[in-house]
Amino acid sequence: MSCVLCREAGGQLIWQGEKLRLIRAQEAGFPAFYRIVWNAHVAEFSDLSRPEREHCMQAVALVEQVLRAQLAPAKINLATLGNMVPHLHWHIIARFAWDSHFPAPVWASAQRPRDLAQEAALERQLAQLDALLARTLSE
Amino acid sequence: MSCVLCREAGGQLIWQGEKLRLIRAQEAGFPAFYRIVWNAHVAEFSDLSRPEREHCMQAVALVEQVLRAQLAPAKINLATLGNMVPHLHWHIIARFAWDSHFPAPVWASAQRPRDLAQEAALERQLAQLDALLARTLSE
Repeated sequence: MSCVLCREAGGQLIWQGEKLRLIRAQEAGFPAFYRIVWNAHVAEFSDLSRPEREHCMQAVALVEQVLRAQLAPAKINLATLGNMVPHLHWHIIARFAWDSHFPAPVWASAQRPRDLAQEAALERQLAQLDALLARTLSE
Repeated sequence: MSCVLCREAGGQLIWQGEKLRLIRAQEAGFPAFYRIVWNAHVAEFSDLSRPEREHCMQAVALVEQVLRAQLAPAKINLATLGNMVPHLHWHIIARFAWDSHFPAPVWASAQRPRDLAQEAALERQLAQLDALLARTLSE
């Protein structure tokens, strides 16, 4: 149980399935930052079987589609890195021209100060967004 | 034709398929950095149909499997960002404990100087690796 994603949800739990879960990451500056976490402890995407990979990426795509439809972001960013927490999880991040790092990756240096008014406006949509994401993944 | 990935391969072309291609990115400091580029100009992963997404991710997984088997990296990093070049491409990066950024993402700040001897040793394997990747994607 030394792995944090085996021990904890890893963020705000939005939906829990048999094979994977969706959490909202609660990363400062990026309100619409979600993660699909594979429930079992595997390190690499290719540790999954092909049907498991397809199941995983279908969940990622569904989350992406909801974020695009609801938020009209400038871009969606997807990534599975896991250098520090080698338990398979996919970052799904709605990016906006106003965010502190755009167009750089969220892991790079900030390009500008945070826009707290824009962040607050986005945060006001999160309860409804979370509920829609949970419904979509349940279908 | 303002999009660089519509105009050019985008790196060293390793394999060209009907729907997608594999290039080696030739990014300084990261010799085993490849990209699967979707040939048609689409911005987001979810712009693809489900069968297209599965085809795309099967290519990504095959590349990942070859990199793992041949190089035994500390971690594979996968990402599709496209904030600056919004033409769908997947970064597939073999990461090593000796690389300048590990365990940070390659887009973050360096953690240490580059290890040119380790990079050179890895570069000596690239011709064979490229050939094996091309054979694997052709099967």
